[in-house]
Amino acid sequence: MFENASRTELSAIGEFALIEHITKDIQLQQNTVKGVGDDAAVIDQGNGTFTLVSTDLLVEGVHFDLSYFPLKHLGYKSITTNLSDIYAMNGTPKQVTVSIALSNRFSLEAVEEIYSGIRLACNHYKIDLVGGDTSTAKQGLMISVTAIGEVAAEKITYRNGAKPLELVVVSGDLGASYCGYQVLEREKRIFLDNPNAQPDLAGYDYIIERQLKPEARKDVVAILENLGVKPSSMIDISDGLASECFHLAKQSGVGITLYEEKIPIDPTTYNFARELDLDPVVTALSGGEDYELLMTISQQDYAKIENHPDLTVIGFVTEAAEGMNLISKGGQKHGLKAQGWKAF
Amino acid sequence: MFENASRTELSAIGEFALIEHITKDIQLQQNTVKGVGDDAAVIDQGNGTFTLVSTDLLVEGVHFDLSYFPLKHLGYKSITTNLSDIYAMNGTPKQVTVSIALSNRFSLEAVEEIYSGIRLACNHYKIDLVGGDTSTAKQGLMISVTAIGEVAAEKITYRNGAKPLELVVVSGDLGASYCGYQVLEREKRIFLDNPNAQPDLAGYDYIIERQLKPEARKDVVAILENLGVKPSSMIDISDGLASECFHLAKQSGVGITLYEEKIPIDPTTYNFARELDLDPVVTALSGGEDYELLMTISQQDYAKIENHPDLTVIGFVTEAAEGMNLISKGGQKHGLKAQGWKAF
Repeated sequence: MFENASRTELSAIGEFALIEHITKDIQLQQNTVKGVGDDAAVIDQGNGTFTLVSTDLLVEGVHFDLSYFPLKHLGYKSITTNLSDIYAMNGTPKQVTVSIALSNRFSLEAVEEIYSGIRLACNHYKIDLVGGDTSTAKQGLMISVTAIGEVAAEKITYRNGAKPLELVVVSGDLGASYCGYQVLEREKRIFLDNPNAQPDLAGYDYIIERQLKPEARKDVVAILENLGVKPSSMIDISDGLASECFHLAKQSGVGITLYEEKIPIDPTTYNFARELDLDPVVTALSGGEDYELLMTISQQDYAKIENHPDLTVIGFVTEAAEGMNLISKGGQKHGLKAQGWKAF
Repeated sequence: MFENASRTELSAIGEFALIEHITKDIQLQQNTVKGVGDDAAVIDQGNGTFTLVSTDLLVEGVHFDLSYFPLKHLGYKSITTNLSDIYAMNGTPKQVTVSIALSNRFSLEAVEEIYSGIRLACNHYKIDLVGGDTSTAKQGLMISVTAIGEVAAEKITYRNGAKPLELVVVSGDLGASYCGYQVLEREKRIFLDNPNAQPDLAGYDYIIERQLKPEARKDVVAILENLGVKPSSMIDISDGLASECFHLAKQSGVGITLYEEKIPIDPTTYNFARELDLDPVVTALSGGEDYELLMTISQQDYAKIENHPDLTVIGFVTEAAEGMNLISKGGQKHGLKAQGWKAF
């Protein structure tokens, strides 16, 4: 049935290229300001307010492994990862819808666990759960969340506003979620080899929590407002710092140079990466699932953010011709590679 | 891992009860006018306009069978079934997001087929495709669509506005989609028994199209506007006329009495149901997937709709104590049963 004269495997083109391919010639005909291609779609309400819409799929065996991912945490994370996209537009999320497909391996009690996490996130972020759909599935668990938010037209930040000489700024620290994932995968393998082994998670609380219960940076949007800083571009870090830098640079028509030594890495992340013989910087650049906010700001705003503990200047914007670069601790300039996580 | 002291099978409670159970004590804290429980969620934009949000999941093997459901039609239907929910609020859909999870059995060309149907629907209904997500899955195909629309605050129709003595009205005709499904399932069985058999679909075009390529009743919303009729309640028929009558009655706190002889059934539907030894009226009451609009209107509006070929008065609203009834062609009153399709 799926025989075609020519058959192109999805794995051969990758997720980003697939999305680009299937959405490349979409014509907008409604009150849509921005369709596919940013953290959220933008709809003009005609009264100075934009509605923001973002949606994500979480698929068992692709995005999560239930052998160590608690269902309540999964529910929580399914919400916060979507809210992160609304914050990345400098907006305020207001509503979510949640659709779930699941096999008969799951009981009502399992669904209640998922929803207890969903509700916890909704309460914490003051979001209304306003709808959804539920269905049986032949296999596995799949959660589809759509977040709806709003932002004043003059406050919105897109991916395409970065300009040469601006500063590249990131919130929080990077690479922790990926290291948490590696801890959990390691303990899973040990458990599979020896079911009597006790999990050894002591000291890894921070990185495990970053993987299992990531928060969205609502506080960073409030901090920027309080500091009087409007980023010229912003994106959330779901696929890894390097990959998101490429998105900002491509859409803004600029280059980006990062300083390796400026990239914020928590000591737990650093030590665990070394333990695994991973370069902590590569972990931060390529790990993904940090849900921190990456932005560009004007040099004039440097003094405003300079001493803020949640914001770090990690590089600067260049002309496109200079490309994507990483200046190492030794001062050498290297080409930056986008090695984000891919869903295909 | 899913062991629980008590384990309740999802199949034991059914989809509607599950949704009610997991959403029963949700507190709304944002600009949400209506959350879970109608065709779409309603968000107040503060300027006399409400934003409408509706979402649906389509799961292979549950909602569609790719052995006879063309991918392009599937894409088309995934959009129109969601738009139908926006029209059921008397609104105008404006945007959709589409998320797809699929196994490596699907090629890029298959995804293109799905999207060609999605685009066709978007063009036909003048909707912007503004976002989505794509992911691999271990098995099967799953499509999650969210539709966003708007409606003037004074035009919105909920499920809960029906009042005793009002008229129950339905658009178009009913039962066709279910009969189309039965034709396709029959031909599939014949083909499985004898792969050399030629499909015999002649004369069934109408009911097959109603199953494979249902339209949303955009025109009915325009007709009502032109006739100067604002329904007191409205719902779209996805689970079957009887089931939707129960929803309207329960939420409005009323009873409904239908006249068997008034229920609009197309001759193709009627003849095919008889061919299968099905009661055509039961087909219309319980078949589902008609995506017609069921509404209640004031008796004063009867003259306005009386001669409209797309609208049929099929019954009237009663006090709740009278319950749910069907008056047969012979004049007997029977209790109406809700036998809609269930996803569990």
